[in-house]
Amino acid sequence: MLVVMQAHATEEQVRAVCKKIESLGYRAHPMPGEQRTAVGITGNAGVVEPGTLDEMPGVAELIRVSKPYKLVSRDVKPDNTVITFPGSDATIGGKNLAIMAGPCGVETREQAFAAAERVHRAGAQFFRGGAYKPRTSPYTFQGLGEEGLKILADIRSLFGLRIITEAIDNESLELVEAYADIIQIGARNMQNYSLLKRAGRARKPVMLKRGLSATLDEFLMAAEYIMSEGNYNVILCERGIRTFTDHTRNTLDLSIVPAVQKRSHLPILVDPSHGTGKRHKVIPLSRAAIAVGADGLLVEVHCDPDHALSDGAQSLYPDQLDELMAQVRQIAPVVGRSVVEAPAPISAITQ
Amino acid sequence: MLVVMQAHATEEQVRAVCKKIESLGYRAHPMPGEQRTAVGITGNAGVVEPGTLDEMPGVAELIRVSKPYKLVSRDVKPDNTVITFPGSDATIGGKNLAIMAGPCGVETREQAFAAAERVHRAGAQFFRGGAYKPRTSPYTFQGLGEEGLKILADIRSLFGLRIITEAIDNESLELVEAYADIIQIGARNMQNYSLLKRAGRARKPVMLKRGLSATLDEFLMAAEYIMSEGNYNVILCERGIRTFTDHTRNTLDLSIVPAVQKRSHLPILVDPSHGTGKRHKVIPLSRAAIAVGADGLLVEVHCDPDHALSDGAQSLYPDQLDELMAQVRQIAPVVGRSVVEAPAPISAITQ
Amino acid sequence: MLVVMQAHATEEQVRAVCKKIESLGYRAHPMPGEQRTAVGITGNAGVVEPGTLDEMPGVAELIRVSKPYKLVSRDVKPDNTVITFPGSDATIGGKNLAIMAGPCGVETREQAFAAAERVHRAGAQFFRGGAYKPRTSPYTFQGLGEEGLKILADIRSLFGLRIITEAIDNESLELVEAYADIIQIGARNMQNYSLLKRAGRARKPVMLKRGLSATLDEFLMAAEYIMSEGNYNVILCERGIRTFTDHTRNTLDLSIVPAVQKRSHLPILVDPSHGTGKRHKVIPLSRAAIAVGADGLLVEVHCDPDHALSDGAQSLYPDQLDELMAQVRQIAPVVGRSVVEAPAPISAITQ
Amino acid sequence: MLVVMQAHATEEQVRAVCKKIESLGYRAHPMPGEQRTAVGITGNAGVVEPGTLDEMPGVAELIRVSKPYKLVSRDVKPDNTVITFPGSDATIGGKNLAIMAGPCGVETREQAFAAAERVHRAGAQFFRGGAYKPRTSPYTFQGLGEEGLKILADIRSLFGLRIITEAIDNESLELVEAYADIIQIGARNMQNYSLLKRAGRARKPVMLKRGLSATLDEFLMAAEYIMSEGNYNVILCERGIRTFTDHTRNTLDLSIVPAVQKRSHLPILVDPSHGTGKRHKVIPLSRAAIAVGADGLLVEVHCDPDHALSDGAQSLYPDQLDELMAQVRQIAPVVGRSVVEAPAPISAITQ
Repeated sequence: MLVVMQAHATEEQVRAVCKKIESLGYRAHPMPGEQRTAVGITGNAGVVEPGTLDEMPGVAELIRVSKPYKLVSRDVKPDNTVITFPGSDATIGGKNLAIMAGPCGVETREQAFAAAERVHRAGAQFFRGGAYKPRTSPYTFQGLGEEGLKILADIRSLFGLRIITEAIDNESLELVEAYADIIQIGARNMQNYSLLKRAGRARKPVMLKRGLSATLDEFLMAAEYIMSEGNYNVILCERGIRTFTDHTRNTLDLSIVPAVQKRSHLPILVDPSHGTGKRHKVIPLSRAAIAVGADGLLVEVHCDPDHALSDGAQSLYPDQLDELMAQVRQIAPVVGRSVVEAPAPISAITQ
Repeated sequence: MLVVMQAHATEEQVRAVCKKIESLGYRAHPMPGEQRTAVGITGNAGVVEPGTLDEMPGVAELIRVSKPYKLVSRDVKPDNTVITFPGSDATIGGKNLAIMAGPCGVETREQAFAAAERVHRAGAQFFRGGAYKPRTSPYTFQGLGEEGLKILADIRSLFGLRIITEAIDNESLELVEAYADIIQIGARNMQNYSLLKRAGRARKPVMLKRGLSATLDEFLMAAEYIMSEGNYNVILCERGIRTFTDHTRNTLDLSIVPAVQKRSHLPILVDPSHGTGKRHKVIPLSRAAIAVGADGLLVEVHCDPDHALSDGAQSLYPDQLDELMAQVRQIAPVVGRSVVEAPAPISAITQ
Repeated sequence: MLVVMQAHATEEQVRAVCKKIESLGYRAHPMPGEQRTAVGITGNAGVVEPGTLDEMPGVAELIRVSKPYKLVSRDVKPDNTVITFPGSDATIGGKNLAIMAGPCGVETREQAFAAAERVHRAGAQFFRGGAYKPRTSPYTFQGLGEEGLKILADIRSLFGLRIITEAIDNESLELVEAYADIIQIGARNMQNYSLLKRAGRARKPVMLKRGLSATLDEFLMAAEYIMSEGNYNVILCERGIRTFTDHTRNTLDLSIVPAVQKRSHLPILVDPSHGTGKRHKVIPLSRAAIAVGADGLLVEVHCDPDHALSDGAQSLYPDQLDELMAQVRQIAPVVGRSVVEAPAPISAITQ
Repeated sequence: MLVVMQAHATEEQVRAVCKKIESLGYRAHPMPGEQRTAVGITGNAGVVEPGTLDEMPGVAELIRVSKPYKLVSRDVKPDNTVITFPGSDATIGGKNLAIMAGPCGVETREQAFAAAERVHRAGAQFFRGGAYKPRTSPYTFQGLGEEGLKILADIRSLFGLRIITEAIDNESLELVEAYADIIQIGARNMQNYSLLKRAGRARKPVMLKRGLSATLDEFLMAAEYIMSEGNYNVILCERGIRTFTDHTRNTLDLSIVPAVQKRSHLPILVDPSHGTGKRHKVIPLSRAAIAVGADGLLVEVHCDPDHALSDGAQSLYPDQLDELMAQVRQIAPVVGRSVVEAPAPISAITQ
């Protein structure tokens, strides 16, 4: 924390500020300048609550310096976190890109299996699909719940895909933890601290999506909540932020990828489906996400998007997923990455 | 919903769009214009999922027309909702302004009672104070929990103040419902639909704070979630939105007050403390909130803000609350409002 | 400027940063903390260009401390600037509120005079009306140009109203300077530095509107541009900023009023017409602007807004201006202000 | 334009709206729905000014449908615009990517030539460098003016690079038109309509940078201003928008690239230097810009960024430009593009 004094601040006012800082248990470092004095604050007592420093006579403004997060920081752990999955060669955060694809919501067993067959055939290692859907309106499809989770577990058994699906409260988190491989916390719940703490006690990796108006610090602090409870397998996901623009549903902030990588050891993925809300933008922005250096993608794909119960307009057709994978394979080496080979098809059994 | 065709769209493309619309169970209303054709969609099947309309050949864009909320709307209930409290003359949404004041968090019995005594003396009828604090960092003060709720209940008994305090998950909501008069849902939980539904089953009024990046529609839809479960006593609260500006913590969007009042019958309050984050702006913005026509205020006040465990920099001193109340009393009549008289002091007993 | 080092930065890296700072002609003030070291920079050579400090090994981030503006600052001139007009008792920035009203654009002599008669009768002392209109589309009404300025000058002669009108380039500024009393620089030109410098050489006061995405610092720096050329009569005007919200055209940021008043001696007005874009919000937000402490208002009024060539939807009817003035007169004393008495009508001559 | 009526609107109110629309010279298309009626507006009289439709009894809201731009639209010209340069094989908008590189500002002949030699050697065909600098502060380096333009012209002669440089007002535009190959209009002047019109009368191509808070429509309308005066050689450039995020100077909105390409035939480039403001983000975001499908890049490079007079922190070192070009060459084929071969070095003469 740094206290910047007004140009007209008296020496007495500067002294009062220093005294105040010390009374709060910190050390004050006055730095007289040509025009004004600044007072640095150091100490081991954690973040200073601005308290009344901000309003003391002669104070122009307060500037926060130290970052309040610890466990997410590269200062604490310089090497990249690589998340592995028992019984699978899939990884997140390592050399291989993690591609997660599937429908917005699990609607029926047939719909989910049809999508999974194509996701598997395209060479992705992770299957996404919501069993619990946070919807803006209480009158729209809210997901199949545990029935959906069972379908997802069956997809894992058949196709060997790792399953990622969203938990929306403590009850659903418990079930998601039991059935899935990765617990997703959605953007709307990024600061639902009660849920974050519960996720921090789960024994499965957690994917945390960036809130629509979250700064980088807030995003990392939300990850810190999870890690502070003991779960260090956290994956970050950029999915678009809210801005004044109206040509996309959200504005995909790809520059957060190198920013996260500079400050944190956690892997970061990009979701261009929610990030744009428009099918024709998903492939271009997927290419861009890989090119910028993301650790993978989360994309929506649906075999019949016209009849999807949610987010049909942003879902790729399965053939588009193949096209996307082909392009990702071409760009990956430019950023020192690779994509695992597409597997042999699961013959004869697509249901 | 309205489908706008491209200027070059063929008649066949227009027909295909109409056919598609009808296959989805709606009626299509093609409107040929000089430059391009638009197709209106009507029908009683609720909101149209954009589906693939958006991506059909010849389609330029989709425009949403009908609002997805019902119960919050003035279309359904033209008269203002006025919330009353048994055993009290306090109201929210009627002619009297609802003034809610108190510390950010309940820290100790002494601190809370000292604040309550001044809040009561200033003439406010509602006492605010957090027992559960959603904090950005897991390492900062998280609230006293049920012990804090008991202190708040004692304040109601002694001072006759109605109590408003925040619930952050289903567990805390149950306790808040038992101890307090109004259940607050914070900005970070505005789209925590699981919590909203639980609040909708509570038997106490709910104050819903606007999310940092919530549009008016999303704000009203969140209220609809609560109402759709049967709880019609919902109070809205503007508390600042996230913008590019850096001279305040958030940007207080006072223009939402007349916007809400045009569309909805629900009362709306303003929180200038969180809305600005700076003590010296709280009184000016409180005056502005009353002048714009809000149904009341939610302000933070602390007897010793220098030592507050949270949000000290934005808490008023008790004398400033008196000053604010005096100014509010002067402005109220200009907008056809009044403020109840300050009560006789609770003599001799301030603890 | 403050350089924050990474937690792992070596002493050598800190020394390299200090050396670099000194090689740039500044003084370095290292401040070792528990977790990391920060290095303060002082010196009289103006603002430090971040240069490569930002990218030196061990550097976590750079934080700007000193404000780059001088002449606009209260540090330089503690007393409020009050702008006066020869041959008139109108002032801006003093105890009296400055009310400026009139149509968006001067369309015809009849239209302008009809509006002026009502503006004068309502008690406003300033008449606004555009002769040069910056329009988003090149195909819409662009203003009457010098003919419009002549009409405005005649309105001054007849009604004694001071005239404010917009200049959009050096050519129009020259004419506006000749005909009007206040030169308006519009929001879109807030960082048109060439125009600002020309305005700084004008002998008339300049009203500078805040750009749609201008921070407080950028707003004040734009005013500094004008003042740095010798024109100290600058009036600031908040007119709404661009945010994600969609219920208004812009978001009126009333909290900038106390923020400006804390840092600068310049007067600040509010334009609730452009700030909201909706007629039914203009009166509520006008009341709020006065209540927050603004030095006056800039509002659009039109005798026949249905047929206005621009911005009809946000123009008040003349009777609404009377209502607004009545409410402003009631709120003014609460903030220690007054409004001059409405004058005797200019009888018989309304053209 | 579409008028949405309130659910409770009477038939009489609907009729009044239709009558009003027709009195304005348009056709009204009432569309009764289950819950409410909407009224479509068509006609050949251009954009409807919302006028009082917005405020008529029974009207819920107005929705704009038709786009106000014509010449920029693919509706008018389906094929991509490809800009060529006499005496050069450089193009913008065709199969070859246009790479523009150079220092933020031309500081000295030596500095500019040193940068040009590296830009040429790296294989870029365009050299950028400011002779007129729009700076936030009046007290910082403002550019060399015509002397800078002469240096740029000499660089063209020696290296065969096409020159792009910014014009900030009518006077500088005239000189830029004389000396350079492309006239740049900066983000701050995107709605300086006087300057846009002057650029529309120039005989050189114009690069228009997106304003910090410009929507896609506003961006295209600004291009329309230039084209409406007869200059059809317009290049668009995304350079970051202003959002709440603080980890970059601006937020680079790469999703506007496919959005522009869907609506307009004009080429669009990306400027990752201003778009991020941080050197370590320039290469990652450059890769992403090519991957998303942009027609080229505008990047800052400086041989000695530590001593740059402006924007040093975001300038690449020359070796980094080589690295960037190598990566761009690898990604280009994935998006069906190519980059011209790097030329033979200009031997012996680097000054």
